[in-house]
Amino acid sequence: MRRLRLLFALPLLLAAGAPMPPPGADPAWSILEGLTTEIGPRPAGSDAEARARAWAVARLTALGFSNVRVEPFDVPYWARGTESAAVTAPFPQPLAVTALGNSGATPPSGLEAPVAAFASLAALDAAPAEAVAGRIVYVGHAMAPTQDGSGYGQYGAARFRGPAIAAGKGAAAIIIRSIGTDRHRLPHTGQTVFPDGVAPIPAAALANPDADQLERIVARGRPVRLRLVLTPLAGGQRPSGNVIAEVPGTDPAAGIVAIGGHLDSWDLGTGAIDNAAGVAITAAAARRILDERRPRRTIRLIWFGAEEIGGLGGRAYFERHRAEPHALVAESDFGADRIWRFQTRLPAAAAGLADRLEQALAPFGIVRGRGTANAGADLGPWARAGTNAIDLNQDGTRYFDLHHTADDTIDKIDPAQLEQNVAAWTAMLRLVGDAPEDLLNQNSLTGTP
Amino acid sequence: MRRLRLLFALPLLLAAGAPMPPPGADPAWSILEGLTTEIGPRPAGSDAEARARAWAVARLTALGFSNVRVEPFDVPYWARGTESAAVTAPFPQPLAVTALGNSGATPPSGLEAPVAAFASLAALDAAPAEAVAGRIVYVGHAMAPTQDGSGYGQYGAARFRGPAIAAGKGAAAIIIRSIGTDRHRLPHTGQTVFPDGVAPIPAAALANPDADQLERIVARGRPVRLRLVLTPLAGGQRPSGNVIAEVPGTDPAAGIVAIGGHLDSWDLGTGAIDNAAGVAITAAAARRILDERRPRRTIRLIWFGAEEIGGLGGRAYFERHRAEPHALVAESDFGADRIWRFQTRLPAAAAGLADRLEQALAPFGIVRGRGTANAGADLGPWARAGTNAIDLNQDGTRYFDLHHTADDTIDKIDPAQLEQNVAAWTAMLRLVGDAPEDLLNQNSLTGTP
Repeated sequence: MRRLRLLFALPLLLAAGAPMPPPGADPAWSILEGLTTEIGPRPAGSDAEARARAWAVARLTALGFSNVRVEPFDVPYWARGTESAAVTAPFPQPLAVTALGNSGATPPSGLEAPVAAFASLAALDAAPAEAVAGRIVYVGHAMAPTQDGSGYGQYGAARFRGPAIAAGKGAAAIIIRSIGTDRHRLPHTGQTVFPDGVAPIPAAALANPDADQLERIVARGRPVRLRLVLTPLAGGQRPSGNVIAEVPGTDPAAGIVAIGGHLDSWDLGTGAIDNAAGVAITAAAARRILDERRPRRTIRLIWFGAEEIGGLGGRAYFERHRAEPHALVAESDFGADRIWRFQTRLPAAAAGLADRLEQALAPFGIVRGRGTANAGADLGPWARAGTNAIDLNQDGTRYFDLHHTADDTIDKIDPAQLEQNVAAWTAMLRLVGDAPEDLLNQNSLTGTP
Repeated sequence: MRRLRLLFALPLLLAAGAPMPPPGADPAWSILEGLTTEIGPRPAGSDAEARARAWAVARLTALGFSNVRVEPFDVPYWARGTESAAVTAPFPQPLAVTALGNSGATPPSGLEAPVAAFASLAALDAAPAEAVAGRIVYVGHAMAPTQDGSGYGQYGAARFRGPAIAAGKGAAAIIIRSIGTDRHRLPHTGQTVFPDGVAPIPAAALANPDADQLERIVARGRPVRLRLVLTPLAGGQRPSGNVIAEVPGTDPAAGIVAIGGHLDSWDLGTGAIDNAAGVAITAAAARRILDERRPRRTIRLIWFGAEEIGGLGGRAYFERHRAEPHALVAESDFGADRIWRFQTRLPAAAAGLADRLEQALAPFGIVRGRGTANAGADLGPWARAGTNAIDLNQDGTRYFDLHHTADDTIDKIDPAQLEQNVAAWTAMLRLVGDAPEDLLNQNSLTGTP
C-alpha cells in the first residue's frame, strides 16, 4: 500500500525530487524514516554512527528541545568482512551465514573442517574436548516466538556463550542456528563474548532454513565437511557518543525522568525496529509534552550510542550522571508493535502512580503485568541500582523474525502501532512528569522482583 | 513445527546419523526433500544439474518406472560472481542486489555512476537516450500478488526487456525492482535477454525493501550515485539433459500422455517451489497409476533440464519427439500450493473428458476455468502446435514471494497442499490415461483461446 502510493506520486523521472516531510507533522514517523533513509545502518564506532549523531543533534534542535548535546566516549571497533559458507561433502552447496560481532577471522581463503553438530548449547557444554577440537561446531536450538521476548535470554545463550565454550574445547570455528524465529535466509548477527584469556575463533550464525538443511544433511549419517570464510576486522578504539535533549521541568528538586532508545544498529539492516523505533517513539512522546505544558520534572531524552556491543552508551551515561537525582527511567528498545503490558519498579509510597498508570493505559489495550520493570539495556544500570523504572512492553511475537537481520527495515513498521506506542508513552510521561509523589525515595518496591 | 520435531528426534551428537526415508513411503515428499537436500541448487549446465540427473535416474529406476534414460543437449553457461551495490551519495549505504541471468560484468572493482530512476518500464522506454547514457538505470513497478500469477508476464517485462532497452540507450548498467511480491531483503534473479547486436550490460535486481529505499533517497531530490559490482562469467557450452521415465500403456495407438516439471533451478535457493515440487508431484502421481493398473496410454514423465534459461530442455524434447503421437501434455511448474482451477485444451469430440475431469476434481476444491491450457514453459511448444493440454493451476498468491530467491527452500512447502496436488494429478491421469475418446484428433478446441 505504502509502496503503491509512493510510486503513483513519483514523476516519470524520479530525480525531479520531492519535498521533505512537513515540519509540523508528528515527528515519530519522520524520525524513523529520516534516520533509516538518510543514515541507514549505524554500527557502533562507525562513520555512519557519527553521521547519525550529527543528524540527531540537528533534528532534536529543530524539534525545539533544550540542552541538545553529544556526550562522547570511545568504543572497541569490529567490522564485518567477506563471509560465506558451504557444505563441501557429502552434498556440496552454499549456506547463508553471517559473522557474529566479536568473531575471529578465518584465513582470507577460508578454513575447511569436519562438522561436530550439537542440538543445543547444553549438549556442546557436555561434550568432551576431543569431540570438538579441530572441528567446525554447529549448535542448534528450539527458539519459538513469545509475546514477551523471553526466548531471547534462554536460547540466546547459544550466541552469547557458545563461541567461547567451543573455543575453550579447541574448535576451529563455530556456527550457530540464528537466534531468531523466522523462515528466511537472512541470518541473525549479534554480539558474542570471548572472556579474557579465550582467543576469539571464527563465529557465525546460519539462517534458519540453512540450519535445517545442515541438520538434514548431518542426519544422513555421512561425514560432513564445511568451508567457512569470515574476514572481520577487529581492533582499536573509535568514537561513539550519546545524544541528549531535554524538556525542562519546573521543579529541579523533583528529579529527572530519563527516557530513550539507542541510535546505533547492527550493520545488516537499517535498524528500524532496533532501534530507530525507540528513539522515534520516545522523542515524539517528549515532544508532545513539550507542546502541551512544562512538566514538573525535567524529561531527559537520551539516544544512546554503542548499545549493540554491550550497552556501552548506557554504561557511559550511568557513570557520568550517577550523582544526579533520577526520579525514574524508561527505555523503548523492542520494536514498534503495540504495547500490550506495562510493569513498574516503584516505591510503596508511589503505589498510587502505578494505579493511575493502569487507568491511563487501559484505553490503549495495555494490561498491568506482575513482574518488575528492568528499564532495558541502556537504562538498566539505574534500575539495578534501585532507581524507579517503568517498562512499556511491546508485543514481541514477530520481533525475533527481524532482529539483527538485513530485514530490519522501515517497511516492517506499522504506522498505526507506532502511533499507539507514542500515545501510550505520552500518557505515561504526563503522569510521571507531574506526579506529586516523592519519586526520589526509592527504598522499597511495589513490583515483584 | 517441522523443525521442533526434527530437533527432538536428533541425538545429542547429530553425527550419529538417521536412516533414509522408508522406501515404501509416498515419493512426493521424499523426492522433494532428497533433491533439495542432496543436490541443493541446480543451475542449468552446472555440475550440480548433472548430479541431479544422476540422482533422478537412480530414484526413478528405484520407483519402478520403465525406460528411464537421459536425453542430453548442450546449453550456454552463465555463472554468478561477486555482487554488491551501494549508494555512494548523498546517503552512503549498502543495497541488497543480485545479478540477473545473462547479466554483463562490471570491472572487478565495480563501476560508479549517477542514477537515472524510472517508475516503470514504459517510462524508461519513453526516455530520451541522453537521460540514460552513462547512468545506472533504475526501473520500478507495482507488481502485486495474484492467484493466477498473471502479474509475472506484465510486470516481468522490466526484467525480460528492461536491460536490453537500457543498453540500447547507452546505460552503464541497470538495476530493477525485483519481480516479486515479498518484503524481504532477498532479491529475485531470473533470466534477461539481450538480442543479437545488443552487448550485455551489468543487470541486477534490488530486493523490494532496497528498491523502496532507493526511491525514498531519489525522492529527496539530490543527485544520487551508486556503486555496483557484478562479476558473472558467461561463455561456452555445457551439458544439460532431460530425464525421462515411463508408465507403459496397453494401447500404443492411443498416443502418449507427457507430463513433468523441470530439474534445474536458479542458484540462490534450493529450487523447492521452482521446481522440485513439480517433478515430485508429477512423479508421485505417475507412481500411483503404476501401482494401480496399466493405463491405456503410456504416461511419459519428463524432468526437463535448463528451463530457467529459456525452456531449452522443453525445446530439445519437442524437436526430438515431435513425430511421436502425443495425446496430451500437462506440466507442473508453479509451486505446491493447492490447485484451485483447471483449464483444458481439448477437441470438441473430447468435451466429455473435460466434464468428467470437472466431476473428478470438484471434491478437491478445484473449479473449471474459462481459459485455455498452455502446458507451461517446457510442454508449451506442444500446446502451441495444437496438442491437447490440461493445466492444473496452483494458487500463486505467495509464489512470487519466493520465486527465484534464496528463500525458495523446502520449509516453504506445505505437505498437506503438496498431497492435494498429487491427488488431483492422480485423478487427472486416471481419466486421461484411460479416456476412450480419440485424443489424437486435435483439430478443434473446447477451450477459449
